[in-house]
Amino acid sequence: MAAATPLLKDELDIVIPTIRNLDFLEMWRPFFEQYHLIIVQDGDPSKTIKVPEGFDYELYNRNDINKILGPKASCISFKDSACRCFGYMVSKKKYIFTIDDDCFVAKDPSGKEINALAQHIQNLLSPSTPAFFNTLYDPFRDGADFVRGYPFSLREGVPTAVSHGLWLNIPDYDAPTQLVKPLERNSRYVDAVLTIPKGTLFPMCGMNLGFNRDLIGPAMYFGLMGDGQPIGRYDDMWAGWCVKVICDHLGLGVKTGLPYIWHSKASNPFVNLRKEYKGIFWQEEIIPFFQAATLPKECTTVQQCYIELSKQVKEKLGKIDDYFVKLSDAMVTWIEAWDELNPGKDSAKLANGSAK
Amino acid sequence: MAAATPLLKDELDIVIPTIRNLDFLEMWRPFFEQYHLIIVQDGDPSKTIKVPEGFDYELYNRNDINKILGPKASCISFKDSACRCFGYMVSKKKYIFTIDDDCFVAKDPSGKEINALAQHIQNLLSPSTPAFFNTLYDPFRDGADFVRGYPFSLREGVPTAVSHGLWLNIPDYDAPTQLVKPLERNSRYVDAVLTIPKGTLFPMCGMNLGFNRDLIGPAMYFGLMGDGQPIGRYDDMWAGWCVKVICDHLGLGVKTGLPYIWHSKASNPFVNLRKEYKGIFWQEEIIPFFQAATLPKECTTVQQCYIELSKQVKEKLGKIDDYFVKLSDAMVTWIEAWDELNPGKDSAKLANGSAK
Repeated sequence: MAAATPLLKDELDIVIPTIRNLDFLEMWRPFFEQYHLIIVQDGDPSKTIKVPEGFDYELYNRNDINKILGPKASCISFKDSACRCFGYMVSKKKYIFTIDDDCFVAKDPSGKEINALAQHIQNLLSPSTPAFFNTLYDPFRDGADFVRGYPFSLREGVPTAVSHGLWLNIPDYDAPTQLVKPLERNSRYVDAVLTIPKGTLFPMCGMNLGFNRDLIGPAMYFGLMGDGQPIGRYDDMWAGWCVKVICDHLGLGVKTGLPYIWHSKASNPFVNLRKEYKGIFWQEEIIPFFQAATLPKECTTVQQCYIELSKQVKEKLGKIDDYFVKLSDAMVTWIEAWDELNPGKDSAKLANGSAK
Repeated sequence: MAAATPLLKDELDIVIPTIRNLDFLEMWRPFFEQYHLIIVQDGDPSKTIKVPEGFDYELYNRNDINKILGPKASCISFKDSACRCFGYMVSKKKYIFTIDDDCFVAKDPSGKEINALAQHIQNLLSPSTPAFFNTLYDPFRDGADFVRGYPFSLREGVPTAVSHGLWLNIPDYDAPTQLVKPLERNSRYVDAVLTIPKGTLFPMCGMNLGFNRDLIGPAMYFGLMGDGQPIGRYDDMWAGWCVKVICDHLGLGVKTGLPYIWHSKASNPFVNLRKEYKGIFWQEEIIPFFQAATLPKECTTVQQCYIELSKQVKEKLGKIDDYFVKLSDAMVTWIEAWDELNPGKDSAKLANGSAK
């Protein structure tokens, strides 16, 4: 029996950053094999990455990135999984799913293997409800709806830009928490998808993440991390803060919750501490900055919003450390590179004309 | 074997509004029988309400309310379960749990009976985290914590004022949704407790609700509903909107999620439609009003906040209908009556000095 054609087969790319052979794909074969993969090889470009047979993929190493972007390649991190955002830029599809190579298929409480990609697609194809909290969570799921007292005018919701999935087993903790709780495992399966309310920031993890590239792609920049940079492990956080501020401004939704993947491998907390320690105190200023950030009404595309945000980063965060001046410049370079590779595509527009 | 003393045994009252014999308490006996009950009898005061033996309770009917409050009794609804808030006012305890008499003990997915009260207590005794979203939900639960990227300065959280519990079986839908989906039942057990973020409103249902009376009691007014009033079924919603705005201002937290109760009886959707229909269009203006409402820094007690809110209600919502002028006056009467029954008790103060 031929496998049925999965949803969005030709409209979604799976982006995987890696430094090793992609044996983990064997486990995902039933769910991924009909989709196209974009593999971004991190680190030494002379190393050969083996991809299991039968997968349709394109692979980019550092030499490819340099060739394609020229001097603008400076905005893509090296020796850090932040390099994955190059994959978002070269994709020509409407949707992206990105996953780490230490993430395996999780099981739901009934023991059934979870098709994480299918759940992300379901999240992305149904609206979000950022303006008012629904106590039964996602009102668009089977068996759920809006509860009494939910304004009818808000029940249409807004387009969903981001679907943030979670992890069973190894939780996504920072180094201090890893050190304090080395044995903690996440075994709680929470059967919910919910919209992060407008005006609320969240820590976006890049391990298991889906998004609508047409709506929010140019804001999914994973910053400057790794080789030559003072911090690491804040790539996805940075993207999440920028994305949320821009989604709130443009009237787009961000969901979190299902699907779960099985996160197999705890990274070394001592190495993580070295990468994170500046971020841990910088974030105490970065988060109030993003909480207070507002974008002018004139910013009606993601690119315009992102450029405006880069200016505010330089002005307000540049005082903390020169790193943010460099990051601000890289944000501009990123947008220039994005527009070069995606000509004539102004991502997003004002959904519902609801810019604040 | 003597039963162990449950948490907050002498610091919590269970408030139950009812028009019938309280046979439903039999099912709750193992969880409730060591606590004190405050029963607020709705409707005909000449009727006798039977309470199962062994429960320690006080019961108030309309005659009692009139005797205790005198002319101020006008702020307490008649022929509507909104009368329950009289119980909050006469309680002398720090915590309140209120439950409807058609709510039974639910079972968790393992088949174990859920002690809803114990879960509310757990929610109320641990902090809330309204300033930033934690993707693993309540960071204070066993096996969970704050995830990577959560600012350390926000990890202490804020005091929890409200614990909003959910319902399995009959969902809390409005009349139109009941009419469209008469057979829908909530069978999804979502194993999560989460803080409703600052700045976000939610539809608070009074069926299964715990709160800290010292922190937020005077804002838990269930408004004017039922006999002689143009609407019903917005009593808990009204309280929820006021409570959330005041909690956000005073730096207090509101949690929703666990515990579940088993909601046994769907109310009549035709009757509900009659009660709700004005509320359904009024809420389209009420919610933007509460979303935009701000309280001045000078308001540092719940009473001050509530009086200020009553003024704004009169000024801004009074234009919709005279009902809101009457409601605004009742809000003031409620506070006067509260202070009369609770002399020398200025509920809440600025937690963390974080009024916006």
